[in-house]
Amino acid sequence: MSALPTFPIGDLPAMWLRDNCPCAECRDPRSGQKLFQITALPTGLRVGSAGAAAGTAEPAVEVVWEPDGHRSVYPVAWLAANRPGRTDHGDLRTEHGKELWTARDIAGRLPAADWADYLDKPGVRARMLESVLRLGFMLLRAVPQREEQVLEVAETFGYVRETNYGKLFDVRVEPDPNNLAFTSVAITPHTDNPYRDPVPTLQLLHCLVNDADGGDSGLVDGFAAAAMLRREDPEAFEVLTRTPVPFVFRDAGTELRADRPLIGTDSLGRVREVRFNNRSISTLRLPAEELEHLYAAYRTFAELLLRPELQLDLRLTPGDCLVFDNTRLLHARTAFAQDGARHLQGCYADLDGLAGTLAVLRRADTLEPLVEMFAGAGTAEYLGEPVTMAQHMLQAGARAEAAGAPPHLVAAALLHDLGHVAGEVVTGLELMAGTDNRHSHTGADLLGRWFGPEVTEPVRLHVAAKRYLCAVEPDYYDQLSEASKYTLKVQGGVMTPEQAAEFAALPGAADAVAVRRWDEEAKDPNAGTPPFEHFLPLLAALARG
Amino acid sequence: MSALPTFPIGDLPAMWLRDNCPCAECRDPRSGQKLFQITALPTGLRVGSAGAAAGTAEPAVEVVWEPDGHRSVYPVAWLAANRPGRTDHGDLRTEHGKELWTARDIAGRLPAADWADYLDKPGVRARMLESVLRLGFMLLRAVPQREEQVLEVAETFGYVRETNYGKLFDVRVEPDPNNLAFTSVAITPHTDNPYRDPVPTLQLLHCLVNDADGGDSGLVDGFAAAAMLRREDPEAFEVLTRTPVPFVFRDAGTELRADRPLIGTDSLGRVREVRFNNRSISTLRLPAEELEHLYAAYRTFAELLLRPELQLDLRLTPGDCLVFDNTRLLHARTAFAQDGARHLQGCYADLDGLAGTLAVLRRADTLEPLVEMFAGAGTAEYLGEPVTMAQHMLQAGARAEAAGAPPHLVAAALLHDLGHVAGEVVTGLELMAGTDNRHSHTGADLLGRWFGPEVTEPVRLHVAAKRYLCAVEPDYYDQLSEASKYTLKVQGGVMTPEQAAEFAALPGAADAVAVRRWDEEAKDPNAGTPPFEHFLPLLAALARG
Repeated sequence: MSALPTFPIGDLPAMWLRDNCPCAECRDPRSGQKLFQITALPTGLRVGSAGAAAGTAEPAVEVVWEPDGHRSVYPVAWLAANRPGRTDHGDLRTEHGKELWTARDIAGRLPAADWADYLDKPGVRARMLESVLRLGFMLLRAVPQREEQVLEVAETFGYVRETNYGKLFDVRVEPDPNNLAFTSVAITPHTDNPYRDPVPTLQLLHCLVNDADGGDSGLVDGFAAAAMLRREDPEAFEVLTRTPVPFVFRDAGTELRADRPLIGTDSLGRVREVRFNNRSISTLRLPAEELEHLYAAYRTFAELLLRPELQLDLRLTPGDCLVFDNTRLLHARTAFAQDGARHLQGCYADLDGLAGTLAVLRRADTLEPLVEMFAGAGTAEYLGEPVTMAQHMLQAGARAEAAGAPPHLVAAALLHDLGHVAGEVVTGLELMAGTDNRHSHTGADLLGRWFGPEVTEPVRLHVAAKRYLCAVEPDYYDQLSEASKYTLKVQGGVMTPEQAAEFAALPGAADAVAVRRWDEEAKDPNAGTPPFEHFLPLLAALARG
Repeated sequence: MSALPTFPIGDLPAMWLRDNCPCAECRDPRSGQKLFQITALPTGLRVGSAGAAAGTAEPAVEVVWEPDGHRSVYPVAWLAANRPGRTDHGDLRTEHGKELWTARDIAGRLPAADWADYLDKPGVRARMLESVLRLGFMLLRAVPQREEQVLEVAETFGYVRETNYGKLFDVRVEPDPNNLAFTSVAITPHTDNPYRDPVPTLQLLHCLVNDADGGDSGLVDGFAAAAMLRREDPEAFEVLTRTPVPFVFRDAGTELRADRPLIGTDSLGRVREVRFNNRSISTLRLPAEELEHLYAAYRTFAELLLRPELQLDLRLTPGDCLVFDNTRLLHARTAFAQDGARHLQGCYADLDGLAGTLAVLRRADTLEPLVEMFAGAGTAEYLGEPVTMAQHMLQAGARAEAAGAPPHLVAAALLHDLGHVAGEVVTGLELMAGTDNRHSHTGADLLGRWFGPEVTEPVRLHVAAKRYLCAVEPDYYDQLSEASKYTLKVQGGVMTPEQAAEFAALPGAADAVAVRRWDEEAKDPNAGTPPFEHFLPLLAALARG
């Protein structure tokens, strides 16, 4: 199946290739951990000879190394998938690994599930955990309303981070508050514990009682807000990413301090962390002019965070447990009347454990639901096109494969319209009613159960890619089928130049455009297609990570 | 006592000043947390009027704000200590908050204490915790040799970070190992869990049994190594700080991944984190040329980390518990014979909790030992000078105060020679024998019990400042007293131009030079000095943070 590598082995960076030798002497077969130090590699390392390996289960290349004579066998599929070339800083913790949102984007697709389903159905659990990574949160419903239950929720995906507040903390409203922290005033969007380093990366809030009038919750995507600030006021963004701010908390038993910027970026300038909480910003010591710039930028960002369109409003009812990314999402609550009772229990945990749990769930998950969806799609009409949904998607996958696309793009092409057909198969999915301009999101959300963003994001963006291509390629619109021209209208129409520039800057844009082209080509009633099963090994390998 | 502020209040940045209003409406008196959001401040905020406040316990300025009429009262001492001017990004987690070291620098001053002393004596506990922050580690001895004791050690300063390895993990040598991870091969310097994010910032290793031949431990200061790389090969340093590297761990039950650079810097370019562990570096996907640069830089850094002068060797004996900063220190072990038994138990915890415990300890600690040291020093001769040690230090402090120096510099001047006199007062301190060219370090280490680096570092550098001033100011040497000229020789002599440039670049250099000048002036047998008690309120305020 796999093509032989089209590049000479000797052109590959020698240290990189050798560092990735998969032999049992170099790498523990069980854990995949390397068994040598980089300094143990001989100096003057180079490929002595390379050729087809004999007797391997899959096509492979054997390399004999100079000067030490070590032998390495690299599967051709591995070389193809990992060949140097494009830059892949696949850090899923930055804005590039996320779907940024405003409140409107979440409407009708709140990542929510019942506790019983979450526990019993690995597919539901995977979809929920994936939502925490991608959207920044999940909402579990009908969680037993007992004290300390929040710890049990955390243990389904990771480990509780104990702090000076204990393993868990109580958020209570007292009718006669003995402390200003327990009044009923509104609390504007903020992140928790900015004075801690490492900051807790996940927060859980479990609602036990909520009889108070008011006290509704709100969530704001801090990454989306930071990206908005970068567009609207690049200087303010730059000041906030550059200036460490002292966050301080002290009481009788502890005293914590962290000096971090309000917007944290990685070494490549991508947003990776937001800390926002005026309650704990301590005295900044800077030259007066820098203080003025910082405070102006800080206030601009604070005002932006209060825009109503950014805030997703939701009311926690008893049994709800909200789990959210505390490095990204800000949370808020409205004011409420003091004559009602309200009691939440919260705890902290960390994203790395949650991501690990999801990765293992994906490994164990079968692709059977996908097989079923395709069987269901086999009979469905494709919006007036002369092919069925299944034929359309299989053709797209086959065209990607024929073009020599990497596995993740073959999968994205094959599965790009899953959102059209999945409604009846996946329990609990909240499909958008009416217009279909969200099917790319629905499909991408579904696929998150098995695949990472390299597959889900081109699917998510494939409708936007049509709107983009119509904007930047004058002939593109004319090539569209009549049905596709029709749906373009309900999908938002041709992009404006500004929208097109924004789209082109997205990390998955190029992949989405590629998928889109195969999509348009895949409407030939006479084209033969391989069966879905043909793609299963490729999908299984991707799903295993 | 305090001078009135020498700057007009109206020149201060209005938002900054108002954000720091200490009134009970703006700030919770108990926790110091702010009770308003920055967006709640009126637009067009400005100082309406300012004047001396009436009826306050200490001199203060009252500001009436326009346009909202809010009144703020700022103590003059607070205005003086926090006045805008110099840049103070006091992030103690970066290299600038640390004392970087090579093995030689630790000789004779290993930060070690017996468990019983650590538990019973707050001063010893504070000194040990401060060593973890400043040097990156502490060694507790005679810790009870029972299983799970390591968790109890962690609980003395913070909270155990549970991971997929459990609350604690066992490092055992099996005579007949069933897994390559438990062989007796040498393990070169590395940090733990680089595939985790947030990475555990502290590691504990408690030795229960160590009968094996070999199996000695080693520690390397990764920040010192990174600074060395920056000096020797700035391009390699830049590549390593810029490139996210995928660290991966997977086994049957988990799958973790973090994409972080080998050398992490903050937004100002200061080293803040080192991750180094070839066992878990996964496949990098970059253009071939970038891969070559990265691998060359990686290998250069790896070779640098193996330099013998960097590695502090120590052998853990039963009852030893090593606690170290896993974001900074690399740990290693030598190979050992398989016929002996060796059993360590380890766990992870976090630096923020430890720093908080230290801050609270400092608050509770009395300054009585300092009073005693001064009383002791009162009778001691000062190396052939015409004043006693106490007279010398009191004069230095008084001169700093008269010059209008900020409190931390008055304290540093007052206490700069404490290392000369503290030997007999502080139990367990390991003073250098022979030459006195370490007394600045001894004094700074001692002061860490009460004060942060703004006091300790000028003290640490005040001998280096003499060597520096002799290098850059031709007349300086001639002004030295005969005794000071004599000790210059044993202290390393006049700095070379390279040494002077390196010194000048240190964050505490300017403060140390200031202290040094008061030091030289403070040898007048006829000068009157205030008693030590005069300085106690200033010292107490600094010690409270």
